[in-house]
Amino acid sequence: MNSTLNSTLPNDVQQYLKSLPLFTSIAASWLEKFTAASIFQAYDSGESILLQGEKIDWVYVVLSGWVKLYRTTQDGNEAVIDILTGSQVFGETAMLTDDISPFNAVAIEQCTVIKIPVTLFHDAIKSDTKLAYAMLKSLSKFRDQQSREIESLTLQNASERIGCYLLRLCRVDVPEPVSLTLPFDKTHIAARLGMKAETFSRALKKLRQETDIKVEGRQVIVPTIDCLASFACKGCSNEYPCDDIITTV
Amino acid sequence: MNSTLNSTLPNDVQQYLKSLPLFTSIAASWLEKFTAASIFQAYDSGESILLQGEKIDWVYVVLSGWVKLYRTTQDGNEAVIDILTGSQVFGETAMLTDDISPFNAVAIEQCTVIKIPVTLFHDAIKSDTKLAYAMLKSLSKFRDQQSREIESLTLQNASERIGCYLLRLCRVDVPEPVSLTLPFDKTHIAARLGMKAETFSRALKKLRQETDIKVEGRQVIVPTIDCLASFACKGCSNEYPCDDIITTV
Repeated sequence: MNSTLNSTLPNDVQQYLKSLPLFTSIAASWLEKFTAASIFQAYDSGESILLQGEKIDWVYVVLSGWVKLYRTTQDGNEAVIDILTGSQVFGETAMLTDDISPFNAVAIEQCTVIKIPVTLFHDAIKSDTKLAYAMLKSLSKFRDQQSREIESLTLQNASERIGCYLLRLCRVDVPEPVSLTLPFDKTHIAARLGMKAETFSRALKKLRQETDIKVEGRQVIVPTIDCLASFACKGCSNEYPCDDIITTV
Repeated sequence: MNSTLNSTLPNDVQQYLKSLPLFTSIAASWLEKFTAASIFQAYDSGESILLQGEKIDWVYVVLSGWVKLYRTTQDGNEAVIDILTGSQVFGETAMLTDDISPFNAVAIEQCTVIKIPVTLFHDAIKSDTKLAYAMLKSLSKFRDQQSREIESLTLQNASERIGCYLLRLCRVDVPEPVSLTLPFDKTHIAARLGMKAETFSRALKKLRQETDIKVEGRQVIVPTIDCLASFACKGCSNEYPCDDIITTV
């Protein structure tokens, strides 16, 4: 493995990859090939990693920092698909459709990634049943997660959706009041939730009034989880705590 | 195979299953097992096929009619996940997450399905690399489709989304004006697009004014595709005709 920035590079890349759900059951021979052929790369905040419409050459594993996946519409708006961080993978499905990236990927703060050649990955899933099965499990979870997101966009109002986002940041077993730090700037959270900045501000104000949460910069205090959950979850088909969605933050 | 209603049962079930993208490359021995163990079932309009939260025992292949997949929120609203018809499959991913159905399935008109035991299907994907690969391709396409849907819900207005839905019903190579028949009632289309009936009516009225389309019951006349596309696609990251979404109708 080549390396241009060592600070976040795991000591044992092979062991690190094996610790990821996608690669836990992969055959040792494939894991060795992945490790030997992979490249470590660092990106500055704002730097482009991948362009929508570009041929996909790599499967990306985020090591550190935050990566925004988004698309730009013909009239210039931005649709944020996801914001990923440590251990999350992207680019692994384009090889199964048309080899073309369906989104842009940009570092929204300094980040590091491990890049695995897509051709090698493709060969592996065609012959390693356990890797294919792990990827099926991962994609099935994504399908559930995206269905819930479609449900949420359809039926929950903006305040409920912010409340839902905050509940996902809370650990179930922590003492109240719960103190949270937002993982990134509110502008990015608004974009991830598909809201314009003004909508986000208005909805957050309403959420504060309804649930007594306090927000100061990236610090949030949730007095009681029950109060936040009874406000945020009423428009959802799941009860809190829900266990069927991949928590990305 | 048992059969309670023969009118839509394919003459050769094995051949029919093999014609579906998911099963094209499956080993003959698995296809034989699927055929021997599968059950044919008919449902009346409004009849429940599967309940949210229920253990999944079957993978369902829709033969005819329309099946609505939906969830009910805690405050009693309905989120429509999809509306499926002939040759479409559902229930195939729950076995990869928790064996529990994440949605309700109901016949919205009389429909027939082939049910394949989920345990058998599960065994097959664990040992048949080609079936696993076909399912990975299918799930990757779903992921793209759902990402586009999230983009659409986030950035397109209701009129644009109805326009997009109609464009998907148009064949690219037909002469103009294009005459379309909506596949089912407008109430279901509104629900599939995540709109309340009033929103749908208002948005359709605006779409008619902007693009000169005519709507009479389930009959739609589109004078020019270009006019409809330039209205509907401006808020989308794709240009018409887009080729990256599974057209379900």
